[in-house]
Amino acid sequence: MPRYALKIEYHGGPFAGWQRQDGPVTVQGCIETALRKLEPDCPGIAAAGRTDAGVHALAQVAHCDMVKNWTPFRLSEALNHHLRPHPIAVLQVTPVADDWHARFSATERRYLFRLLSRRAPSTQEAGLVWQINHRLNVEAMTEGAQHLIGHHDFTTFRSTMCQAKSPLKSLDELSIQEVPSHHGVEYRFHLRARSFLHNQVRSFVGSLARVGSGSWQPSDIKTALDAKDRAACGPVSPPEGLYLSGVGYPDDPFEERL
Amino acid sequence: MPRYALKIEYHGGPFAGWQRQDGPVTVQGCIETALRKLEPDCPGIAAAGRTDAGVHALAQVAHCDMVKNWTPFRLSEALNHHLRPHPIAVLQVTPVADDWHARFSATERRYLFRLLSRRAPSTQEAGLVWQINHRLNVEAMTEGAQHLIGHHDFTTFRSTMCQAKSPLKSLDELSIQEVPSHHGVEYRFHLRARSFLHNQVRSFVGSLARVGSGSWQPSDIKTALDAKDRAACGPVSPPEGLYLSGVGYPDDPFEERL
Repeated sequence: MPRYALKIEYHGGPFAGWQRQDGPVTVQGCIETALRKLEPDCPGIAAAGRTDAGVHALAQVAHCDMVKNWTPFRLSEALNHHLRPHPIAVLQVTPVADDWHARFSATERRYLFRLLSRRAPSTQEAGLVWQINHRLNVEAMTEGAQHLIGHHDFTTFRSTMCQAKSPLKSLDELSIQEVPSHHGVEYRFHLRARSFLHNQVRSFVGSLARVGSGSWQPSDIKTALDAKDRAACGPVSPPEGLYLSGVGYPDDPFEERL
Repeated sequence: MPRYALKIEYHGGPFAGWQRQDGPVTVQGCIETALRKLEPDCPGIAAAGRTDAGVHALAQVAHCDMVKNWTPFRLSEALNHHLRPHPIAVLQVTPVADDWHARFSATERRYLFRLLSRRAPSTQEAGLVWQINHRLNVEAMTEGAQHLIGHHDFTTFRSTMCQAKSPLKSLDELSIQEVPSHHGVEYRFHLRARSFLHNQVRSFVGSLARVGSGSWQPSDIKTALDAKDRAACGPVSPPEGLYLSGVGYPDDPFEERL
């Protein structure tokens, strides 16, 4: 059975997250339903990262095994046709080896978090950013973020529901960019790691926003990290600002084809 | 009665346009309803430009007469509170002279049109761009646009429903910008004139897109203009890519206060 890697974009708003469930509409469920319109016996898909309800993706990666040999273009066109009107789009399809796995072959996950600071409610980006109404200090947040980069026990910054065996992870990047926005300012958090714990990015952002607003000092991030205690975490930010922005592979199957 | 100028942003999607109607939900209707929550006898508002159903605004301008003296901040906060959950936001409020008029004092209207060229359906910008699936030639469109700049009889490019007395207008700017977009390219049309005819921007964009895709030559724009015949116009582009992006006044009441 030929295996294909799919690069997928979605608006997380209408979905109960990535993972298939009985009842609630999920991104995986919609894609599998579309695949079975093409091949009724299609055995489901596996993704690089499960996203929570309301979380978006710019470039989620999944793989599927098909019976027929599909040209990548025809497979993406057919899937996008059957995915309508769900806000899910297959951006790219590429054939991969039988032992290539969207999740287990991945060596890096990238996330973007968009935090909009603006007084007036957002009308055109509602649901696509976390909006607050005060400015944040980027220098202070950047200083706080330095304590998180590297190999740490991230118990403080993971959900109590997290199923990962170990809270030890390496964070490779956490940079914060300030960009002008219409009648406001947007803070973009860029994160990169081999893998993330459940709610880790949202826990980071919520805690760093405390630093940005001055209610925490940058060093309070280190104190929270060292506590290895979920109770030491700041508020978890809402899901609507979070995007799975990319997945890295040793030999990126999409790059070769572009 | 103190008069206030309001700078307003909205997502045009859910509305039957700007102008108040009996029955359909309109932007003007929602704002007047919110104003009457503050002052029951508020006599309605006048805007710089009436936008059609589905058309957005980044900075529509309107004025209202109030009984009480409101601080600008309190008035905008109270309006935004009562406008929820409609995607309409008051960005700024400023007091103006009794003879200042949002429509009649305006000397310039600015529009933005966003045209997204991408194969996969847009999931996060759906309703905020006009999406097509082929690339356009910006140089050819820019060449075609030159024929439209200046003082002309724009009969070809106005709706047969247009109520303006004369089809003669001066177009001061029509520039086209190509910006990278996620797995695609976005073409941004920037237009500026003292005033516009009904459907003028969408008629321009639909005709220029023909030039961009090669089915029209740049000189066909001049032929269409010279025909002074609505039938010579290209297809009218859909409303969802269009934004009223600004209104100019001799002494901008908002600038002074920023």
